[in-house]
Amino acid sequence: MPEAIKADPVEILRNLIRCPSVTPEEGGALALLDALLSNAGFTTHRVKLTAPDTSDVENLYARFGTRGPNLCFAGHTDVVPPGDPAHWRFPPFEGAIQDGLIYGRGAVDMKGGVAAFIAAGLDFAAAHDNDPENAVLPGSISFLITGDEEGPAINGTEKLLRWLADRDERIDHCVLGEPSSRAALGDMVKIGRRGSLSGTLTVHGKQGHVGYPHLAENPIPGMVRLLAGLKAEPLDGGNAHFQASNLEVVSVDVGNPAFNVIPAQAQARFNIRFNDLWTPATLAAEIERRLTAAAGNEVRFSVAFEARSSDSFLTAPGEFVDLVVDAIAGATGRRPELSTTGGTSDARFIKDYCPVIEFGLVGTTMHAVDESTPVDEVRALARVYAGMIGRYFAAFGR
Amino acid sequence: MPEAIKADPVEILRNLIRCPSVTPEEGGALALLDALLSNAGFTTHRVKLTAPDTSDVENLYARFGTRGPNLCFAGHTDVVPPGDPAHWRFPPFEGAIQDGLIYGRGAVDMKGGVAAFIAAGLDFAAAHDNDPENAVLPGSISFLITGDEEGPAINGTEKLLRWLADRDERIDHCVLGEPSSRAALGDMVKIGRRGSLSGTLTVHGKQGHVGYPHLAENPIPGMVRLLAGLKAEPLDGGNAHFQASNLEVVSVDVGNPAFNVIPAQAQARFNIRFNDLWTPATLAAEIERRLTAAAGNEVRFSVAFEARSSDSFLTAPGEFVDLVVDAIAGATGRRPELSTTGGTSDARFIKDYCPVIEFGLVGTTMHAVDESTPVDEVRALARVYAGMIGRYFAAFGR
Ligand SMILES: [Zn+2]
Ligand SMILES: [Zn+2]
Repeated sequence: MPEAIKADPVEILRNLIRCPSVTPEEGGALALLDALLSNAGFTTHRVKLTAPDTSDVENLYARFGTRGPNLCFAGHTDVVPPGDPAHWRFPPFEGAIQDGLIYGRGAVDMKGGVAAFIAAGLDFAAAHDNDPENAVLPGSISFLITGDEEGPAINGTEKLLRWLADRDERIDHCVLGEPSSRAALGDMVKIGRRGSLSGTLTVHGKQGHVGYPHLAENPIPGMVRLLAGLKAEPLDGGNAHFQASNLEVVSVDVGNPAFNVIPAQAQARFNIRFNDLWTPATLAAEIERRLTAAAGNEVRFSVAFEARSSDSFLTAPGEFVDLVVDAIAGATGRRPELSTTGGTSDARFIKDYCPVIEFGLVGTTMHAVDESTPVDEVRALARVYAGMIGRYFAAFGR
Repeated sequence: MPEAIKADPVEILRNLIRCPSVTPEEGGALALLDALLSNAGFTTHRVKLTAPDTSDVENLYARFGTRGPNLCFAGHTDVVPPGDPAHWRFPPFEGAIQDGLIYGRGAVDMKGGVAAFIAAGLDFAAAHDNDPENAVLPGSISFLITGDEEGPAINGTEKLLRWLADRDERIDHCVLGEPSSRAALGDMVKIGRRGSLSGTLTVHGKQGHVGYPHLAENPIPGMVRLLAGLKAEPLDGGNAHFQASNLEVVSVDVGNPAFNVIPAQAQARFNIRFNDLWTPATLAAEIERRLTAAAGNEVRFSVAFEARSSDSFLTAPGEFVDLVVDAIAGATGRRPELSTTGGTSDARFIKDYCPVIEFGLVGTTMHAVDESTPVDEVRALARVYAGMIGRYFAAFGR
């Protein structure tokens, strides 16, 4: 299997870092990839997506090969703002390399991952004479790269996937290159993610004067009671692939500036990260059940859930996960933990179309000053992705 | 005893209502009283009080007689804003009378009380030939009237009392004319007030992402625990003269706009109305003890108390309270309940100088649209005050 890479992912990464692609700016990053991939025989599509009240965002889809199966690498070139450049050891959009580390905004999240899988893809194309019609091609590889992951994520992966589906463009399996490793490259791969459901709880009372509490109805003791009831029992104990679901109350607000006034209402906002024992609907019902039980006909409340929830998902261990793990072990010497922890990612959209896993660099410096990654790990990551391509077509190719 | 009044309190009240004395405006109200009292032989002092960051406020002190004992009637002519005059049946600064009711902002709180005790005072002066040196005078009566009761109460009664003390002006007993009656004139007299102590509780946590709660420390469950602990046991059971002390949490605030962020801290603000089983210091110690017990070394918190607390006070039943009750019963036919309920009043300042009780009109329409009082009750109140003067000098006079 061709696990030595000819294209240099570190050079690609350095050039990507030099594109100031702070969300929602394209910054030259997608143009750079478009040129590299077009030259190598990829068919590329620059897709500008728009929506009211959001910035227009550029996205890129590129494919090498015309037949299935289609192994897609997904990622983003947009980055979070660097903050004050004076706080950085090196300018955040320079790509300086020192003592084996490459510095720059996006080095880890996730221009490093993009550079690595682009390098692996260029190698795959070169191995097939950069001819997408080559008769020995075992299938296709593709790249789905958005400029709206760090922003509102409205004009990004979700819509780009719909755009592809509308064109009958099929993706069979997907590898998302987000930083997934914890302490060393290869120690963790994400095979699923918990879902997310947010809501707002309002407890209704009756305004009055603190001197006459019997004429008023303070909503705050009721809020205390309901919040205690919400957290009294764990939602579940987790299962083989998932942590226990967890509810966090993220804010409680009354906004009463006076010490002598009993307020009319109190609000609390909460978020639940939940495993595959729940759907947003069953979870919302359980929350309402707990609140109703805690209220016991004595606390008047209402609860509203945010429209934008996301389901949990799991790409269950099997042939695809096995080859991913083997590729990671082959290039890094580590057998990764199969994890479903952490926040959400664009995998929440991709999972509606095909099995998806997430594997990428060590995430510790992401979004921070002096974001950086060892250049050796960028090269090792490119070898991991090349190993995935080889093993993927060995397992699923024509 | 001269319980029929010659001066007309309703005419005085109507003229007072016509002075638009919304805090901190004098509005002509004190000038009107100054003229009435000067003409009747009173020595008057207009005292303008000032403080940084507050409006200048006019106040009035007037005395008839030069010897002790000095029975003082206290009150205020400032009123709260009327809101939209279009919502009123009659213009709020007109003093319209219909079906036996006089309408206007301040009719109840407390130009009605002021008009009634001024009328009683004018009668007392007239009965002594408007001669403050009259040899048969049994003592003095005085009026302490502020224009800053409804506002910050910084340039009002508290400072005016100090101004008097600095001039060696002694007050022996005081009647505050705030609306004290509940449903009918004479059903309640206030012989004390609970104290008030406010504080702010902060629970400290550690900010983080809801996806990684083990790396953060959500302060909200700790806040829920501390607030439950604060209210778990009553502060006391009250006693012969006082209701149980009561703590109200009036606000809880985090101010976190994001659903995916665990906040760094949470704040709660509370107020305690307490009886004479406590002082602000013993109560603050009890609150800290309860919070410390509820926190149990697991919740990091701090608590800060507002500097402006007020002690409770009680003018214990005895000769002064007896004559007050007799005067009320004599003019209204009702023996009032001796009460210490409700909010604070300027009596919290007066009690540091002499025994004080509060008696006035029925308060139900105070601060509301269509504030109004029966003119018969204003006249009856003037007879009550006249009865207090007569009985006071019978008991304490020279
Ligand atoms: Zn990312
Ligand atoms: Zn008042």
